[in-house]
Amino acid sequence: MISKADVDAAAVRIGDRVRHTPVLPVADSGATVFKLEYLQHTGTFKARGALNRILAAAESGELSGAGVVAASGGNAGIAVAYAAAQLGVPAEIYVPVISSPAKVRRLHELGAVVVQTGNEFAEAYDAAQKRVSDTGATFCHPYDHPDMAAGAGTLALETWAQTGGFDTVLVAVGGGGLLAGVAAALDGRARVVAVEPAGARSLHDALAAGQPVDVPVSGVAADALGARRVGEIAFEVARRTGVQSLIVEDEDLIAARQHLWDRYRIVVEHSAAAAMAALTAGGYTPAEGERVAVILCGANTDPSSLG
Amino acid sequence: MISKADVDAAAVRIGDRVRHTPVLPVADSGATVFKLEYLQHTGTFKARGALNRILAAAESGELSGAGVVAASGGNAGIAVAYAAAQLGVPAEIYVPVISSPAKVRRLHELGAVVVQTGNEFAEAYDAAQKRVSDTGATFCHPYDHPDMAAGAGTLALETWAQTGGFDTVLVAVGGGGLLAGVAAALDGRARVVAVEPAGARSLHDALAAGQPVDVPVSGVAADALGARRVGEIAFEVARRTGVQSLIVEDEDLIAARQHLWDRYRIVVEHSAAAAMAALTAGGYTPAEGERVAVILCGANTDPSSLG
Ligand SMILES: Cc1ncc(COP(=O)(O)O)c(C=O)c1O
Ligand SMILES: Cc1ncc(COP(=O)(O)O)c(C=O)c1O
Repeated sequence: MISKADVDAAAVRIGDRVRHTPVLPVADSGATVFKLEYLQHTGTFKARGALNRILAAAESGELSGAGVVAASGGNAGIAVAYAAAQLGVPAEIYVPVISSPAKVRRLHELGAVVVQTGNEFAEAYDAAQKRVSDTGATFCHPYDHPDMAAGAGTLALETWAQTGGFDTVLVAVGGGGLLAGVAAALDGRARVVAVEPAGARSLHDALAAGQPVDVPVSGVAADALGARRVGEIAFEVARRTGVQSLIVEDEDLIAARQHLWDRYRIVVEHSAAAAMAALTAGGYTPAEGERVAVILCGANTDPSSLG
Repeated sequence: MISKADVDAAAVRIGDRVRHTPVLPVADSGATVFKLEYLQHTGTFKARGALNRILAAAESGELSGAGVVAASGGNAGIAVAYAAAQLGVPAEIYVPVISSPAKVRRLHELGAVVVQTGNEFAEAYDAAQKRVSDTGATFCHPYDHPDMAAGAGTLALETWAQTGGFDTVLVAVGGGGLLAGVAAALDGRARVVAVEPAGARSLHDALAAGQPVDVPVSGVAADALGARRVGEIAFEVARRTGVQSLIVEDEDLIAARQHLWDRYRIVVEHSAAAAMAALTAGGYTPAEGERVAVILCGANTDPSSLG
């Protein structure tokens, strides 16, 4: 459903509107390079997808005069608000009433209209859909849209060019937009390892069931990785390209996040530590000489827990 | 007292023992690129100088069988302990009794012998000197030694190569080892702006007085920038190369540090935010099109103050 050509097109489309985040060569638990994508605008890779989604919609004539709508109290919502502001497009972000005041403030600062509705994410999502059918605004799905996924995939093209290639890439999975983009971008050039916390195994369970299925969601990384069901695009790309699926425990995420701070002075959020945890906790053991890239994809976190 | 040739030699000597830290292109308050040197081993650039110092001493036959001695409860001490451990050389680090338990623990973890003595840094320093004359151990000055400064300067060579050149570099000054190395490395190719907090203006006052003078020391960055007197090497290089000296206020450091977190998810210590503060607080205003590199040189800090 998305191909390398889509990711190449996304890279041209978003150009220098994204930060071409640097890589750090390392020799740590089997990792050879970190992609420092947490240095991206808005603090996560989601800015890439959001910019690509809105720009592509503008190009194709899909973009509504009513602007864009998203349902997400998290990083995807912030990224859509940011991208819309950059492009001069109105944005409405639907979030549950229980959303943290800090996140709501951030959305306001970015100039979005914030609609707090419902006690659960699903209710905010339904309200966003209703708004879209009422006004014709363009809905920006947080992960299961080809342009969102292709935009995310541009970070893999960059990493490839910056490193001269690698054998394996480790990537965290929520709804799978990032995974789909990365796997499409690499197009068989490297092994893709998809890492999920035990409390949010939407891809893992989908691969086992042969189709996307609802999963229970819990754990320290649930705010970013806790998709109830993996995206169709991610599922299809994962199956087609033979993505390897791995589960890590919350305590391993926490330790990997602390390790990144202690050893590199890198602060990431728990979700972004998942990929590293696959190495530090031993879930993935690279072969001798294997070149392993770890995507550090977000840092919207309270650093005080690192002490 | 040090030249570009010394820095070039240091770069060859230390080779891949240091991390070749990445740069981040930005467009922020006049900055065009950040050198992410806080990602260095030990969390600061001091690892470069410490490795160069010990390796050069080994090469020249100066390195004593009794190992190395340093007096510093801060980043220079940690860097000497780290470098010595990497090179298999015994290290003794002298620190005042009031040093934070966390720093002492860190030195122990790196395998150093830690000697806690005296209520003030000056007493620990004297005790270290006495130890050196008793045992013949090699003293590693935290900044005022040509090999320490030349090692630090290697980060400027790297930044130059990574960016294809720049017009101006902003650098924080404590005792001036970093400044001396950077100015020597650039050798007139770029303007060097030396930034000090109002509470630790050793270079600024030395330039005004025409010679290094003792200065009072206070403020949020005093742990890293609070040298009582600027080094002879730094003074000489600063005068010879026409370094521009700038003072920033503590509140500007604090704001610049917060800005780096809010906008980039970069955590630095207060000292390392000094260079950025010169831009964000308006002390240095680049011309249109001026390419300005900001050295982010350390992150040994408690991130909880970033909230
Ligand atoms: C920091 C971070 N990492 C990973 C993910 C997972 O991305 P995806 O839903 O595309 O799998 C997210 C999603 O918001 C995120 O914010
Ligand atoms: C993070 C950091 N920045 C700047 C400095 C100042 O370096 P110098 O004493 O070489 O001027 C130090 C010194 O320890 C430091 O640790």
